[in-house]
Amino acid sequence: MKKFVNDPGEVLADALTGMAAAYPELRIDMVDRVIYRADPGRAGKVGVVSGGGSGHEPLHGGFVGRGMLDAACAGEVFTSPTPDQVLAATQTVDTGAGVLHIVKNYTGDVLNFEMAAELAAADGIRVASVVVADDVAVEDSTWTAGRRGVGTTMILEKIVGAAAEEGYDLDALLALAQRVSGGGRSIGVALTSCTVPAAGKPTFELPDDEMEFGVGIHGEPGRHRVPLANAHEIATSMVEAIRADGDITGPAIVLLSGLGGTPLIELLLLYGEIAPLLAEAGVEVSRRLVGDYVTSLDMAGASLTVVRADEESLRLWDAPVVTPGLRWGA
Amino acid sequence: MKKFVNDPGEVLADALTGMAAAYPELRIDMVDRVIYRADPGRAGKVGVVSGGGSGHEPLHGGFVGRGMLDAACAGEVFTSPTPDQVLAATQTVDTGAGVLHIVKNYTGDVLNFEMAAELAAADGIRVASVVVADDVAVEDSTWTAGRRGVGTTMILEKIVGAAAEEGYDLDALLALAQRVSGGGRSIGVALTSCTVPAAGKPTFELPDDEMEFGVGIHGEPGRHRVPLANAHEIATSMVEAIRADGDITGPAIVLLSGLGGTPLIELLLLYGEIAPLLAEAGVEVSRRLVGDYVTSLDMAGASLTVVRADEESLRLWDAPVVTPGLRWGA
Repeated sequence: MKKFVNDPGEVLADALTGMAAAYPELRIDMVDRVIYRADPGRAGKVGVVSGGGSGHEPLHGGFVGRGMLDAACAGEVFTSPTPDQVLAATQTVDTGAGVLHIVKNYTGDVLNFEMAAELAAADGIRVASVVVADDVAVEDSTWTAGRRGVGTTMILEKIVGAAAEEGYDLDALLALAQRVSGGGRSIGVALTSCTVPAAGKPTFELPDDEMEFGVGIHGEPGRHRVPLANAHEIATSMVEAIRADGDITGPAIVLLSGLGGTPLIELLLLYGEIAPLLAEAGVEVSRRLVGDYVTSLDMAGASLTVVRADEESLRLWDAPVVTPGLRWGA
Repeated sequence: MKKFVNDPGEVLADALTGMAAAYPELRIDMVDRVIYRADPGRAGKVGVVSGGGSGHEPLHGGFVGRGMLDAACAGEVFTSPTPDQVLAATQTVDTGAGVLHIVKNYTGDVLNFEMAAELAAADGIRVASVVVADDVAVEDSTWTAGRRGVGTTMILEKIVGAAAEEGYDLDALLALAQRVSGGGRSIGVALTSCTVPAAGKPTFELPDDEMEFGVGIHGEPGRHRVPLANAHEIATSMVEAIRADGDITGPAIVLLSGLGGTPLIELLLLYGEIAPLLAEAGVEVSRRLVGDYVTSLDMAGASLTVVRADEESLRLWDAPVVTPGLRWGA
């Protein structure tokens, strides 16, 4: 295993130490492993909390800051955060207006966020939750009943974070979150496996002439192993998988995220193939991001996300955001 | 070779097509392969042009925009741009106040930018050049007389771009560029080789238990092959190599750039080891960036850059910048 690590069992603790050094504008609770905004939300602002297993950076900790998340709970690599972590984050960011949990649809995440929400409720905190399940590849999967949550999560965090900053109340925020989340679809493709540090070897074997179409962000199996194809063919399969899932015509926010081991030049090249295919499919790409946003450790590959947009979500997307992983307008 | 590519000989053309789709705010000349700001500099603003071989994205094209570069010339992968490309960029961005060329110290780049400067001079355009040679690993190398130019380039582009935006004239800009560039030191380490698409196989062989200390951003040999070490040991060697090269005490801008195949979680972890070592070495880290900024295709590894800073360079660093690869304050 060729990685920048010390003790493979201490990757999360060491990465949080690095995050504290790299992002001094954030506040990091090293005991509860929660990343917070250093500038707390004003009284009356709904708190926005997300989190999940580590290994998907910059998701979620890199999206903490003004106009996006108030806190992110970091689980061990590919492991759900505990209810205690989520409860601590929820209690800390609540200003009395309630807290929205943004949860990716993995069994452990859903259970632990639910448990935290119950504990918070017992503590008098109103919590609402949105579960992102946008991966069109497969219906059920390792760790998942229903679809997996992937790239839409990050777009949702941006939009909902802006809305909370603007003063949406918890009910309005939840309605917005459900609408945005429900309009998101993703598909991933892996050219190589990732390697979990504690395991020390690739999660799965993928021959040199094959790729995994529909892979999950933990290396979960996708739809099928297929022969390695060129960028145009891969783009065609990705857009077709999303198009076949439902109506994607009209304005959209599009994300092409690298999975960690693929460099930007390849992502740009792939996006050059995807863009005209989206146009042919009737997608009006209002905003787009190409880069590493929702990753899977060192996996070579990419994930395409198309989130239907409207005037409200585009306005919130364009609102100022100041986080390590996403920043504009301020 | 597992990459998102079509014809391996057309990678640059296809990547530029993707860049045009991903960055509609930029203007891309597909014939001359130059990336321009869509909002031209106002009359009297010195133009700032850089460029080099492709494969280092977001450098340079991703740093075109307000407050940074006016144009970037994209050579083929790991191949210098031609004098004609540089001349076209220079002519286009000149508003009468002259043009600064930012050149990484590789023989082809230096020659071709020099030739373009002569052609531009014959055309009545004043051109000044700064050559970045910040890599402390080796004195001469493949394609280089003297030190190689790496991470300082990107920091220089930001600072000089802000100064040009502020209205520095060409002489003042050149003096600033030379001072910043002269205060920059970098060292890289490769855990794996990169694979040039047209070659189709790794540039060099690196056993599973070894790494290349002092690697160049084209996979050029470094100081020595050494046994694979943990993040703390690697950080120690990197900081020591930079510290041994000269006085690095005082304020600095620090960049830890991934080389393309290394995910953010590992870079953050490595930075967590580097930060206290820099402090011990007397470096006061005034600003820092951790992520993929100056890459080497899909190479796993990282490059550490320390650029001495002062009040002027920090003010310019903090000035608004709006590019695909770096954005803040606007």
